[in-house]
Amino acid sequence: MSALPAAKTSPGNFFEDFQLGQTIRHATPRTVTLGDVALYNGLFGARFAVQSSDIFAQKIGYPRSPLDELLVFHVVFGKTVADISLNAVANLGYADCRFLKPVFPGATLTAVSEVIGLRENSNRKTGIVYVRSRGFDETGDTVLDYARWVMVRKRDEAAPVPGDHVPRLLDAVLPSTLGDACPRIDVAAYDFTLAGSPSRFGDYAVGEKIDHVDGVTVEEAEHQIATRLYQNTARIHFDQYSAAQGRFARRLIYGGHVISLARSLSFNGLANAFHIAAINGGRHVSPLFAGATVFAWSEVLAKAELAGRTDVGALRLRTVATADRPCHDFPYKNGDDYDAAVLLDLDYWALIPR
Amino acid sequence: MSALPAAKTSPGNFFEDFQLGQTIRHATPRTVTLGDVALYNGLFGARFAVQSSDIFAQKIGYPRSPLDELLVFHVVFGKTVADISLNAVANLGYADCRFLKPVFPGATLTAVSEVIGLRENSNRKTGIVYVRSRGFDETGDTVLDYARWVMVRKRDEAAPVPGDHVPRLLDAVLPSTLGDACPRIDVAAYDFTLAGSPSRFGDYAVGEKIDHVDGVTVEEAEHQIATRLYQNTARIHFDQYSAAQGRFARRLIYGGHVISLARSLSFNGLANAFHIAAINGGRHVSPLFAGATVFAWSEVLAKAELAGRTDVGALRLRTVATADRPCHDFPYKNGDDYDAAVLLDLDYWALIPR
Amino acid sequence: MSALPAAKTSPGNFFEDFQLGQTIRHATPRTVTLGDVALYNGLFGARFAVQSSDIFAQKIGYPRSPLDELLVFHVVFGKTVADISLNAVANLGYADCRFLKPVFPGATLTAVSEVIGLRENSNRKTGIVYVRSRGFDETGDTVLDYARWVMVRKRDEAAPVPGDHVPRLLDAVLPSTLGDACPRIDVAAYDFTLAGSPSRFGDYAVGEKIDHVDGVTVEEAEHQIATRLYQNTARIHFDQYSAAQGRFARRLIYGGHVISLARSLSFNGLANAFHIAAINGGRHVSPLFAGATVFAWSEVLAKAELAGRTDVGALRLRTVATADRPCHDFPYKNGDDYDAAVLLDLDYWALIPR
Repeated sequence: MSALPAAKTSPGNFFEDFQLGQTIRHATPRTVTLGDVALYNGLFGARFAVQSSDIFAQKIGYPRSPLDELLVFHVVFGKTVADISLNAVANLGYADCRFLKPVFPGATLTAVSEVIGLRENSNRKTGIVYVRSRGFDETGDTVLDYARWVMVRKRDEAAPVPGDHVPRLLDAVLPSTLGDACPRIDVAAYDFTLAGSPSRFGDYAVGEKIDHVDGVTVEEAEHQIATRLYQNTARIHFDQYSAAQGRFARRLIYGGHVISLARSLSFNGLANAFHIAAINGGRHVSPLFAGATVFAWSEVLAKAELAGRTDVGALRLRTVATADRPCHDFPYKNGDDYDAAVLLDLDYWALIPR
Repeated sequence: MSALPAAKTSPGNFFEDFQLGQTIRHATPRTVTLGDVALYNGLFGARFAVQSSDIFAQKIGYPRSPLDELLVFHVVFGKTVADISLNAVANLGYADCRFLKPVFPGATLTAVSEVIGLRENSNRKTGIVYVRSRGFDETGDTVLDYARWVMVRKRDEAAPVPGDHVPRLLDAVLPSTLGDACPRIDVAAYDFTLAGSPSRFGDYAVGEKIDHVDGVTVEEAEHQIATRLYQNTARIHFDQYSAAQGRFARRLIYGGHVISLARSLSFNGLANAFHIAAINGGRHVSPLFAGATVFAWSEVLAKAELAGRTDVGALRLRTVATADRPCHDFPYKNGDDYDAAVLLDLDYWALIPR
Repeated sequence: MSALPAAKTSPGNFFEDFQLGQTIRHATPRTVTLGDVALYNGLFGARFAVQSSDIFAQKIGYPRSPLDELLVFHVVFGKTVADISLNAVANLGYADCRFLKPVFPGATLTAVSEVIGLRENSNRKTGIVYVRSRGFDETGDTVLDYARWVMVRKRDEAAPVPGDHVPRLLDAVLPSTLGDACPRIDVAAYDFTLAGSPSRFGDYAVGEKIDHVDGVTVEEAEHQIATRLYQNTARIHFDQYSAAQGRFARRLIYGGHVISLARSLSFNGLANAFHIAAINGGRHVSPLFAGATVFAWSEVLAKAELAGRTDVGALRLRTVATADRPCHDFPYKNGDDYDAAVLLDLDYWALIPR
């Protein structure tokens, strides 16, 4: 009783604090509301009709407009930050991310992660932590499931290695597992004029590249408001005082902000690809800073029919986002290296009416 | 099957793409929610009691607070941009804009435009397109109806002229047609103290000028968030990379942003003019850029009783907005030319309790 | 009838306009919605589980998540500005502020102030106005009650003194009067992992100091959006044109913005102190300007049990916010003077599970 009080603030987990197979229940359950949707729309300007109009959504078979899948992703991801990546050096990648159930305004989301891999780096200063994170709604159903790996600092270089296992992760989500978060839709009731484009599944060809044309300049207030909306508290996004002393001297914009910007830009060319069913992999190639203008283009990597479904098909898309670089010539890689303007290389499956 | 895929992105319509009498159903239906209202309030700080308090609205006869008329206008207008003004050189004017039905949170808005006039300019590089645009709610009722004309580039100077007709538009909406979007209100239940002013219809005189006193500085993040909220994707508002190479070297703020700022500022002097019934005409005299401070003043141009209604009367107002120029001396025109500080010259009818 | 129309805009009250005992009903009732909550979350990033998750709130005994107490405070405070502090030179302090009833989305708030003290300053140019302001919900119940004093300019130095009375205000709200806005909670159902910390009432010691670690940089757009959301129209927060000619040459950020930032930062160390029951006193030590990074730390000043309640206890906290100054060494005062980095010295009672 007379001892000093225990520390009340968490310094976050360091590499040696993780254990293989460990399960972490993340803090701060979150009821996601119409208000969050409005703010998300104001920040990204999404125009996909299913998410924009309750009436449009109802006509094709949803009970109402679902939340944008990326809003669900960001809210779940945000919960994991305090436990997984507060001491991260780099966010290395995502894989095998599937959206499993539509989420509607009013749902309350929680998140749990399992440590599925650990490998110390040879410098002994850092290690790679692999987690599988799941988002749940208030009924306990899983709405989102993804793997992620991050490079995390060690508190003490001499600390013993907590494990040595690199999990095998899918290169791409199998088409046979897509579509759980998209109800069977009534394509006859899908109004392509209202949706903004006549192009359907059959109109896209593998290898086709689409310049999304528009550019959007990012302001500090915008990415901060977005990232706080997800209750993602990674200091690097908010604290200019500390950032000024760091490598970039600037606040680093949450990588997910770029994903949402690119998705919104992609409406111009992919207006009917209304549902992100899965993310195969995502790489944040270079950091984004406020003041830059983001552009994007996409390539159709593959097409897949979904077993037993004639309503929608899946396009496997690579969407590339750039900074201060229009995309009419589809900048990507020069040899093995990414073009210097590339911010994001995102590989995902989107569903589109057939 | 082996042909190149059709272009997936729309370059927008050029002057020669329009036809007289053509009807265009615009994309992206939009359910407007309490979340949008909150964001609109955060961006403009409106204080009109009817739109601010469900209880106040109910006491005087509304089922609940209606959406701000300008939010309805911006959402409907936003839908027309991709089809009408993506290749516009200038947004020349509005006329005969009437609000026809109150809109409440939860309504889903769609928009349709009809081409009512076309005239090529003598340089053959551009032409003026006149459209009548209508906004509908989910029941199919028209909530908003207005004419607009814009100068649009030709894709090909040699292209034949698609028509030559200049429509006759009303100089001002007739008072006899006002009030459809304002239910009969119970003036005895209208609490003038809560509303912020004792001034009624009878307290305003034709020719009276009111300085709205306050000024508000506009930030890039603010106008971008607002304009995206309306799903207005005109590149000039968002893309600093491209703007830097243009005439102004800055992002141009959506003209409707100035209208909403001026309307919010006008509360200080017009607190009971709670409903915009019609816009007779609007002219964006000069462009607004972030960093400028907007001021406003109004003049009572006319007053009108509404047929059969003793609850409210109509004030015809000119509200002038300026940049970096307080309005205690009512800056407007010097001879034929507008004062250099003037941004907006807006002529509209507002309803106010008698 | 032929006289000049009466002035339509209010210049605000000057010191000689107030009368002791005067009651002022403030304008603009406000329905506070889920949309406002979302925007508040986007601006401050609060993570307290009770306010974040309807399910969490319901499990412990609320009907749903209540509004953040500070959002209620800001909305009520905002209404008083036009009548009380439009001509204020300085906002001197708050005292005896109690939250009396939980407020939920959908509530409509109004505000009334009573003038409880007046004292002219010896320079005869200004005087101090003391008011007790109350916020009410749509049922007429008081949800918030606080005293505030501000230094207000005289219109006319020669004007007679409207009164001379300095009210006695409590140094601190008595613990016996705390908790009306917090229902009896089921601590067994309070999930400390989900809430983000294991620390309860018994884990905090009087004199204990907590560095909240994180810092957040404030942008102009952020504080303007927040302050407009509360319909607080004090010109100094919005008008850079006029500010440029003033003492600071910058827009001054609403002091309540700092309080909300500090409260959100305090989650890291006080995650379970979910309810602000009372504010004993608040001092805005120095002004905050956009671009600065806000840090915070707290000290436990006292602890109190609540009569008849075994569910929660009260921590009396001092939370200090600083600008561009991390708080690992708890900057506060150097002798009698505040450290130059200190922005806010806030003394309040927060409830936390036992």
